[in-house]
Amino acid sequence: MLSEFDLIRKYFERAPRAARLGDSPSPGIALGIGDDAALLRPSAGMELAVSTDLLLEGRHFQAGADARKLGHKSLAVNLSDMAAMGAAPRWATLALALPAADETWLEAFARGFFTLAGRFGVELIGGDTTRAAAPGPAPGAIVICVTILGEVPRGLALYRAGACPGDDVWVSGELGGAALGLAQPGNVAAARRLDEPEPRIELGERLRGIANAAIDVSDGFAQDLGHLLARSGVGAVVEYERLPRFAGAQARQVLSGGDDYELVFTARQERRAELAALAQELGLELTRVGSIQKGEPTLLVLDQHRAPMATGRGFDHFIP
Amino acid sequence: MLSEFDLIRKYFERAPRAARLGDSPSPGIALGIGDDAALLRPSAGMELAVSTDLLLEGRHFQAGADARKLGHKSLAVNLSDMAAMGAAPRWATLALALPAADETWLEAFARGFFTLAGRFGVELIGGDTTRAAAPGPAPGAIVICVTILGEVPRGLALYRAGACPGDDVWVSGELGGAALGLAQPGNVAAARRLDEPEPRIELGERLRGIANAAIDVSDGFAQDLGHLLARSGVGAVVEYERLPRFAGAQARQVLSGGDDYELVFTARQERRAELAALAQELGLELTRVGSIQKGEPTLLVLDQHRAPMATGRGFDHFIP
Repeated sequence: MLSEFDLIRKYFERAPRAARLGDSPSPGIALGIGDDAALLRPSAGMELAVSTDLLLEGRHFQAGADARKLGHKSLAVNLSDMAAMGAAPRWATLALALPAADETWLEAFARGFFTLAGRFGVELIGGDTTRAAAPGPAPGAIVICVTILGEVPRGLALYRAGACPGDDVWVSGELGGAALGLAQPGNVAAARRLDEPEPRIELGERLRGIANAAIDVSDGFAQDLGHLLARSGVGAVVEYERLPRFAGAQARQVLSGGDDYELVFTARQERRAELAALAQELGLELTRVGSIQKGEPTLLVLDQHRAPMATGRGFDHFIP
Repeated sequence: MLSEFDLIRKYFERAPRAARLGDSPSPGIALGIGDDAALLRPSAGMELAVSTDLLLEGRHFQAGADARKLGHKSLAVNLSDMAAMGAAPRWATLALALPAADETWLEAFARGFFTLAGRFGVELIGGDTTRAAAPGPAPGAIVICVTILGEVPRGLALYRAGACPGDDVWVSGELGGAALGLAQPGNVAAARRLDEPEPRIELGERLRGIANAAIDVSDGFAQDLGHLLARSGVGAVVEYERLPRFAGAQARQVLSGGDDYELVFTARQERRAELAALAQELGLELTRVGSIQKGEPTLLVLDQHRAPMATGRGFDHFIP
């Protein structure tokens, strides 16, 4: 039977160990997996961005969910937070509770995780594995907790605060796909948006010095833009018809569906040409959907007749 | 009803927010809770120590466990990893899954967490809260995942590797108390060792430049010392009678009981006087229990007749 330590060594210890004590196994890492803590050497002149996300079976994903996709998604949602800060992701820790040391599951999960990590140069530096627990005799739910660490040049990070009256409001990609995928698992393109979101890392890094404020869409466009407005102390008017909508998504999926992991950001009007060029260069749709207004931090979404639309309420874990 | 966002604001957002964008709310923190990620400013010349631990209801603690003690312990086990590296803890993230937003529970948990955090100058910089989940209709288990970040001057961290033949083996405090507390919940002193372990932070920092190798006792003395030996490529002989034993603890609790969170470390014999003085200064027992040997990375524990003792096997989450 695979022990906890064998499991870690076999599936998660990818970074080479230092050959000798004091050697660095990789740039920026003085000590990787296998001690009481990892030791990192952050780059000079950089701020360290840190974020953590918890994914639970039965809450964030269904029992029996594809392990490779879970490996991808558990890292992707954290990478998306780095993108929203304009940070370059560098290191991650992974805490995992599993009902059993199922090697097929582990191999697939690790493949999904490390494939995405490799694309963005992220190294797994530590973690914790344990057996899942449940209050009763039932097997416990799978728990995945990833903490991501990234770097951004001092003073250049994208905050939620920072939006100014007159700024344009922009959205990357399309909205509502993940919510549609949840409602229609047979819709392959939409399900892919839900299960294998693409963190907008390159976009986030390129928005340094261009965007005034940014956030990623995890709880729903209206709610997440609402957070940005509250932090910035400004309002916004958005035209629904301008919103980039995933094919087939309904208004409530576009406005309040979570899990899209697109970026919503604001920028001065003088930046429009630059952002159009950036969209072209990255091959990623960037859509101007409205503008920031002086006044109360409220979001007004207008329909095609310029009548206010109900934006619904985004997701909240503690309000049914 | 308390929303996820109110909950975070009310119980966990302790660090003052920056008054203005760009202001730093506290030294080392450019941006705290409330954005997509926290932004830290690690100190120059320091390595960053990072560790993460997952605690599950029904696995690491019982259903109905005292919330204040859980708040303490969930941070303490992570602080202990910093101690074992000789790192000064600075920042933590907290991911929490709860069956409901129970304010009495939250208040007590936060009190336990922040009281300990305050003692060591640790600031909570971010996290994630979500509703617990279970595969069936039962309420989900509480999940607590803390990631700790600390700093240690470059090149001075304590590794598991580094023990040399001839080194003394030392143990702080007493062993077996937590295991005794688990077996006898009515034993108040022992239960306190289990529920409210004291991370040996000051000791860890003072061992920089003195200890050759260190680890904390989380899975059991024999198993954890075994990890240190394996990493260092050396063996050890320990005399059972020398081990500092919690009053009433049996041999298997002393040798294989987990959760004591004492430090086991090795140091050259020339360091004995220095360590005796350090013990006195810190008011913490430091006991010389054996020595490091050339050869296979095996641990030999001798009884009073110098006969080898069975050390049992430490805890493994995936082997019943």
